[in-house]
Amino acid sequence: MRVPNIPILKLYNCLLVSIQVELDDQTALKFQEDLLNKIYETGSNGVVIDLTSVDIIDSFIAKVLGDVISMSKLMGAKVVLTGIQPAVAVTLIELGISLDEIETALDLEKGLETLQRELGE
Amino acid sequence: MRVPNIPILKLYNCLLVSIQVELDDQTALKFQEDLLNKIYETGSNGVVIDLTSVDIIDSFIAKVLGDVISMSKLMGAKVVLTGIQPAVAVTLIELGISLDEIETALDLEKGLETLQRELGE
Repeated sequence: MRVPNIPILKLYNCLLVSIQVELDDQTALKFQEDLLNKIYETGSNGVVIDLTSVDIIDSFIAKVLGDVISMSKLMGAKVVLTGIQPAVAVTLIELGISLDEIETALDLEKGLETLQRELGE
Repeated sequence: MRVPNIPILKLYNCLLVSIQVELDDQTALKFQEDLLNKIYETGSNGVVIDLTSVDIIDSFIAKVLGDVISMSKLMGAKVVLTGIQPAVAVTLIELGISLDEIETALDLEKGLETLQRELGE
């Protein structure tokens, strides 16, 4: 089976990702790898991951998402999550996933603005 | 077979698309439909289609691409193509696809800037 590719767009010093496929385990892991490679290749220091189209999330995907944020941070890129739907928010909290240190914003525009502001540009 | 979904991102009044899957006929037609629907839903008046990852194009895909640009224009949205690779440029010209009226730009950033300028914002 071919694992779907989640496109990563580079805009200025940021990467934009809009997750619009169903996130199964393989897809999520491939996305993690692709995103880290892209941060390295492009030297981006900010990432916006838009979850507007994600209406459900399980514990594995939530963990991968938390991991990718920590890993990006280690590599020097700040991640902002945007468009978290109510059901996804509920699941994340109920699973006890700590999102304390994770920046969120309402939508892609606001996510980019948050990043630009925090990166001081 | 499931037809891959090409994510369409909304940023301000523009839509951003980065084509990072192999464009077979079905995928291209689905993309055409999705993009037109998204223009209608969001009321966007600009679209940037980034072809950086597309390294080959055939006559059918070239036609669909030309069509989607004309259709978007009819709906009131201006399209800018970015990141056209040499081989793709050669194919488009050799196929006699008229891109006279099509705006192009080097990359996503420049494409967005072109749009913002032309839309007077």
